Amino acid sequence: MSHILIKNVHTIDNNIVSIGVKEDKIAFIGQDVPTGFTIEHTIDGKDKLAVPGMVNTHTHAAMTLFRSYADDMDLMDWLQNKIWPAEAKLQADDVYWGTMLSVAEMLRSGTTTFADMYFFMDEVARVVDETGIRSVLSRGLTGGDDSDGKSIAENKDFYKNWQGKADGRITVMFGPHAPYTCSQKFLEEVINAAADVGAPLHMHLSETKGEVAECLAKHGKTPIAYMDSIGLFSLPTIAAHCTFATSEEICIMKEKNVSVAHNPQSNLKLASGVAPVPEMLKAGIVVGLGTDGASSNNNLDMLEEVRLAAMAHKAIANDPKLVNAREAFDMATVQGAQALRLTGLGVLRADAKADIVLYDMTKPHWYPRFDLCQMLVYAAQSADVHTVLVNGKILLDAGKLTTIDEEKVKYEAEARAKKLTGYKG
Amino acid sequence: MSHILIKNVHTIDNNIVSIGVKEDKIAFIGQDVPTGFTIEHTIDGKDKLAVPGMVNTHTHAAMTLFRSYADDMDLMDWLQNKIWPAEAKLQADDVYWGTMLSVAEMLRSGTTTFADMYFFMDEVARVVDETGIRSVLSRGLTGGDDSDGKSIAENKDFYKNWQGKADGRITVMFGPHAPYTCSQKFLEEVINAAADVGAPLHMHLSETKGEVAECLAKHGKTPIAYMDSIGLFSLPTIAAHCTFATSEEICIMKEKNVSVAHNPQSNLKLASGVAPVPEMLKAGIVVGLGTDGASSNNNLDMLEEVRLAAMAHKAIANDPKLVNAREAFDMATVQGAQALRLTGLGVLRADAKADIVLYDMTKPHWYPRFDLCQMLVYAAQSADVHTVLVNGKILLDAGKLTTIDEEKVKYEAEARAKKLTGYKG
Repeated sequence: MSHILIKNVHTIDNNIVSIGVKEDKIAFIGQDVPTGFTIEHTIDGKDKLAVPGMVNTHTHAAMTLFRSYADDMDLMDWLQNKIWPAEAKLQADDVYWGTMLSVAEMLRSGTTTFADMYFFMDEVARVVDETGIRSVLSRGLTGGDDSDGKSIAENKDFYKNWQGKADGRITVMFGPHAPYTCSQKFLEEVINAAADVGAPLHMHLSETKGEVAECLAKHGKTPIAYMDSIGLFSLPTIAAHCTFATSEEICIMKEKNVSVAHNPQSNLKLASGVAPVPEMLKAGIVVGLGTDGASSNNNLDMLEEVRLAAMAHKAIANDPKLVNAREAFDMATVQGAQALRLTGLGVLRADAKADIVLYDMTKPHWYPRFDLCQMLVYAAQSADVHTVLVNGKILLDAGKLTTIDEEKVKYEAEARAKKLTGYKG
Repeated sequence: MSHILIKNVHTIDNNIVSIGVKEDKIAFIGQDVPTGFTIEHTIDGKDKLAVPGMVNTHTHAAMTLFRSYADDMDLMDWLQNKIWPAEAKLQADDVYWGTMLSVAEMLRSGTTTFADMYFFMDEVARVVDETGIRSVLSRGLTGGDDSDGKSIAENKDFYKNWQGKADGRITVMFGPHAPYTCSQKFLEEVINAAADVGAPLHMHLSETKGEVAECLAKHGKTPIAYMDSIGLFSLPTIAAHCTFATSEEICIMKEKNVSVAHNPQSNLKLASGVAPVPEMLKAGIVVGLGTDGASSNNNLDMLEEVRLAAMAHKAIANDPKLVNAREAFDMATVQGAQALRLTGLGVLRADAKADIVLYDMTKPHWYPRFDLCQMLVYAAQSADVHTVLVNGKILLDAGKLTTIDEEKVKYEAEARAKKLTGYKG
């Protein structure tokens, strides 16, 4: 099915068009089907909304294994007594099945690209290869001055083995974890290793008040300013969270072209705060959206992030015009792709990658039909996702996953989660 | 089907039980089916979670007609130039079909009781009667010193005609709209009229900063304190929003047994703010959740309100333990019922009303299975709602509405919304 026609489908701009897919790309989009376009498979667009697939710019996919294992706890209590002990037992095949579960959930909720930072990344790459989803992968790197450099070497090998693989659906970054888990010397080694191969960086920055206070006390600078001072931003960087980014740091990020992964639900649930996204957007920073791991969210539903991104900043600033529906939608799609340095993605236009999501608009919450972007952002459900294409292939076909044995995935994930946590229920 | 057995179903407390329904009530809940219980219909509870139906304590149901008609606007611009002109054209049958659409959406998303404040309330009552849902209805009352008292008389007639009707599924309140739309004299007339028949009150209070400032300037008191001073709380009252309730006002509400309808999404989207719910709960005030009208939310999905209620206050107070999953769930169920002065509702126990929602737990976001309350509050989707009973009758049967002609409702609502707004698309 390399030539697909999506016929008479609604768009976010309230038009009705036909979309042609040829191999991995959108061949055309418009009122008419060009002569000479061979149709091998047709999808009826009636009562369906076509949008570019959502780009989840920050997650730890295999952490779906710890979804709802522990909630409503203080951050350090949660990490030290629940998450870290369970993660310490993780084996490669646990990460494989945890990531499989996350990909099933992401495809079902309209996400076609995810940026992951975790361990056993060869397993994550295998899942991406097998399922057909698109991803930007980095090994989470932590280390002090005495680090043996093994994890950095792993990230280098991982780059060599997987960059551009799976029909170009895998991009590799380096993943220095955070200012408080990496020494300056270790970070400099990461920067050198990434620069050697020309890979971008993915890093948690300025997530919590505690991190900012510790960084100020230790380095005399706030986290983003500190990273700038040691040359991190000489490489293209996506910074996750930036909850407490200062005005000066926003200027630095704009100047150094640092993009941001905004995780509004994770920031609320972990009681971190609300990132200054309106200021970032005003400064011209590219801001994408992310779910963070499912243990801190507790799902991978990007539409929830879009909705919250559109709503939360209004209340904080007492301005209902801030972050309108289209801006929130763009953060989840075209800006997300840009934040991850992916080109020809996050938009529906000829020659862009054919990562397309069709929402079914027949449920009552889709009526009456006013502006479809506003309806998607403020009223829809991710369960309305009906069909998903990635790289021109149909991965969700009228609600059925085509590349994933969902029953087996649920069984394996369940068994492994219970083994890792010792949870009796 | 007055004798229904829900067999081997999961509960929010992580048990597996059977639930017997006889006429309008839960006959038993436990491991075994009592001898002598005649079974006319059995529902298999495998992979299903049974919870009490959600109670939406504040909405304007027919405003689904204006869902996504206008978003991201300043409040007064939105009201004066979009909502009020469209509402001015409303006819009785528009309210009928708009409310029908809202009931279809509410049942599909697990809401079994809604508290409505709007116009043409006979139409709303007809919809409740015909669809089988449960409701607490009040006519929205606005008026100055020169009011002819017609709307108050309408609310009195409405009480006389509908209180306790539809098999007891309709309760009537009086609905003084807000401090800024009612003069003191008018409010005193409302209080007298409600006291005459012993009806409770449903009122918007302290929703926006502007309202508080205007009330202080005009009456020398903040809105809740002002209402207390004129004797409003001599009647049982549910106050919607209370976004800017002060510590003194929280004491008043506790003392006078005023309950609260917390509408977290509407408060964010309209840039009102975040209500001091943790303080209210600590004071022992009964707090329910509401969606507000679909034109300011933009759906009637109570699970979104539950999730946001559990998340938002954590970030504001920098405390991840605030408003835990169970507290948020209780606000949407048992506390919501109490807030509306309904007894034997919002809980699954013998002799309570048989308002029961079954969630299907087979989608990937329900795996792995840890605490089911946390999974529902933080990970589930309202689209997981599979079966809904109200007053012992099945109104949603495996995803199919049994009392509503959904295609006709969508058609009528669409046509009327376009007529009222003149929207061309």
